[in-house]
Amino acid sequence: MKFGGTSVGDTDRIKAIAVHVAAAVATGDQIAVVVSAMAGQTDDLVGLTRTASVAPDAREQDAVVASGEQVSAALLALALQDAGVTARSWLGWQLPIRTDGQHGRARIEHIDTGEIEAGLKRGEVAVVAGFQGVGPGCRVTTLGRGGSDLTAVALAAALKADRCDIHTDVSGVFTADPRIVARARRLDKVAFEEMMEVASSGAKVLQLRSVEIALNYGVRLRVLSSFGDDSGTLIVAEDEVVEKRVVSAIASSRDEARITLLGLADGVAAAARVFGPLAAANINVDMIVQNLAADGQAANVTFTVPRSELASALTILEAAKPEINYRSLVHDSAIAKVSAIGVGMRSHAGVAQQMFAALTDKGIGIEAISTSEIKISVLIPEEHTELAVLTLHTAYGLDVED
Amino acid sequence: MKFGGTSVGDTDRIKAIAVHVAAAVATGDQIAVVVSAMAGQTDDLVGLTRTASVAPDAREQDAVVASGEQVSAALLALALQDAGVTARSWLGWQLPIRTDGQHGRARIEHIDTGEIEAGLKRGEVAVVAGFQGVGPGCRVTTLGRGGSDLTAVALAAALKADRCDIHTDVSGVFTADPRIVARARRLDKVAFEEMMEVASSGAKVLQLRSVEIALNYGVRLRVLSSFGDDSGTLIVAEDEVVEKRVVSAIASSRDEARITLLGLADGVAAAARVFGPLAAANINVDMIVQNLAADGQAANVTFTVPRSELASALTILEAAKPEINYRSLVHDSAIAKVSAIGVGMRSHAGVAQQMFAALTDKGIGIEAISTSEIKISVLIPEEHTELAVLTLHTAYGLDVED
Repeated sequence: MKFGGTSVGDTDRIKAIAVHVAAAVATGDQIAVVVSAMAGQTDDLVGLTRTASVAPDAREQDAVVASGEQVSAALLALALQDAGVTARSWLGWQLPIRTDGQHGRARIEHIDTGEIEAGLKRGEVAVVAGFQGVGPGCRVTTLGRGGSDLTAVALAAALKADRCDIHTDVSGVFTADPRIVARARRLDKVAFEEMMEVASSGAKVLQLRSVEIALNYGVRLRVLSSFGDDSGTLIVAEDEVVEKRVVSAIASSRDEARITLLGLADGVAAAARVFGPLAAANINVDMIVQNLAADGQAANVTFTVPRSELASALTILEAAKPEINYRSLVHDSAIAKVSAIGVGMRSHAGVAQQMFAALTDKGIGIEAISTSEIKISVLIPEEHTELAVLTLHTAYGLDVED
Repeated sequence: MKFGGTSVGDTDRIKAIAVHVAAAVATGDQIAVVVSAMAGQTDDLVGLTRTASVAPDAREQDAVVASGEQVSAALLALALQDAGVTARSWLGWQLPIRTDGQHGRARIEHIDTGEIEAGLKRGEVAVVAGFQGVGPGCRVTTLGRGGSDLTAVALAAALKADRCDIHTDVSGVFTADPRIVARARRLDKVAFEEMMEVASSGAKVLQLRSVEIALNYGVRLRVLSSFGDDSGTLIVAEDEVVEKRVVSAIASSRDEARITLLGLADGVAAAARVFGPLAAANINVDMIVQNLAADGQAANVTFTVPRSELASALTILEAAKPEINYRSLVHDSAIAKVSAIGVGMRSHAGVAQQMFAALTDKGIGIEAISTSEIKISVLIPEEHTELAVLTLHTAYGLDVED
């Protein structure tokens, strides 16, 4: 069971988790719990390091930040003891959870579960500090954004757990964001591949890397609300998804910005010149559309970058203008990416066409398109996000219960 | 160098320490720094554990509380890096600082200084989290009150350091509390034995155990203010103290309460019956005075306990009334202990008499007396504390410079 920052936001919530875990223990389950830092704590700690240093050493920053999960894990162990459950906290270095030395975004290399398993057999609940590990030279490392989910999935894999329950603010994976679509329904099951596309399409349910690891190690993953009694959404192998709709979910994201380079010389070879410098700066480029211009020589290329990295991207592209050799550059932050996702697409034709027709019908302009085997994404003006999601939810028959 | 909680109270102060350490490094010194948690942090963390559990498991409480020094040590390492000094933080388990398993008041068993020494030789400053270690089963332990001083002294001993500088709120050891005696002077040197008596007589300069360890391991200890440029007070072997006054310092403490048991039957054998139950409850008894009553059989016994433990002591004594066999019990919290301390007493007679005469002259009643080779303590009504300290400071010739 993994509980995020909001679920451990104060000691009252921690006690509520303890009651929840105690009830599961009472059914005979053996349970390891992974916790995030108390809500807001990680940001506060990062802020402290930034007041102590203009460019904090990632190793020392990790030592500061990891203290957040150290506190929440020990507090939950205490609350469990008060709830009558034998429990102890485990820090990254205590198990240990070995990682590489990429501080701030370390990768888990190995989890030693010997001590935890011995404890589980004695009926002891292991409360593991999420987000942290120990790297080369005995230094504390952290795993980066979504790190506690990673800890949970990796620990479940190492323990060969029957299931990994990710307790979060939402009660599962929905056919669309319920804040946009009142008729959105929680899915009982989604395929790993769908979940990965959902994760990379703007839904804040689970980090992509956690889903990947779960898929690779065959971890049966469940997403559910922190205290709700419903069963959440189970993430399963594709052949376990009984309800095979063509489209399972509509996702939307406003985290991206569009950049268009106009009048690129030597159009066909331009891509390498454009994306080389961005890749070197570690800027993630999504949705790329390239058209040869009217003269057949100069080309236009449109792509998206995370909105938070737009400024850096523009600086890089302007500095590299002579090498890239383009006429002009335009950009737009007021855009949204809307995606239709479903493993059923593999066996159905015309799914994309249905999307374009539905959006065009509503007068929504499509600025770019990208597709994978089980996903179609379009870039549209941000103001049309809700309309597009609602339209597609209806168009793909997701409004109605089966 | 050890810096306490107030000195690392916020990042501005941490930066000021970094500047101070950097200046020392620039002179060619090899430096290890020990830090406490940021002021107030330890109390806040203890408070959290108490809201999570009615009787917090000391092991989990230690894991929570130790995070305070983890943060301050890493922040100081960051600030040092910004000040141009190579530095890294070391947590108790990283060195490691091995302790026994008495959580909350663990004793240091061994400090492995291999990595720190290698770093020092490379010109690196080691910033060590005070107050914490690692005990049996890889669990985080804390050393109890004054624990960071202990870490500093033990580390200085392990490193065979030339000196251990304890930076604190006061600028050294004074002939009396300067808030009481305007003419109190800072002592350039005090003997270890004097420092131990000062520490056990109410001065909040250093914990007794730290001084003991420094004495046992020959650590040259210095107490000085956090940022002051004066040289503080050096704590040295008795034969190094040049200025051999009869009395070096007057100390006072309001931390105690007096208990008197009246009409103890079988007076001569009563002490064991009285103090056995208190010792079993780990209540520290100081200053014991026993008088046989007029009939030569029943006795009265007066003693002091820490004020914070008065209630427990009374409960224990009342419960054990039948076994102890006394007529009645009186107690008083409005008392103070005033002590005169000095290695010169060893070779001077009449020092105690001088004290009693001076106090009696001012009409101050003496409720109990205890003496050691280099200390005389009296118990007086609390309201006379300042008067007694001022009177003795004058009586022993401490008002005037040599």
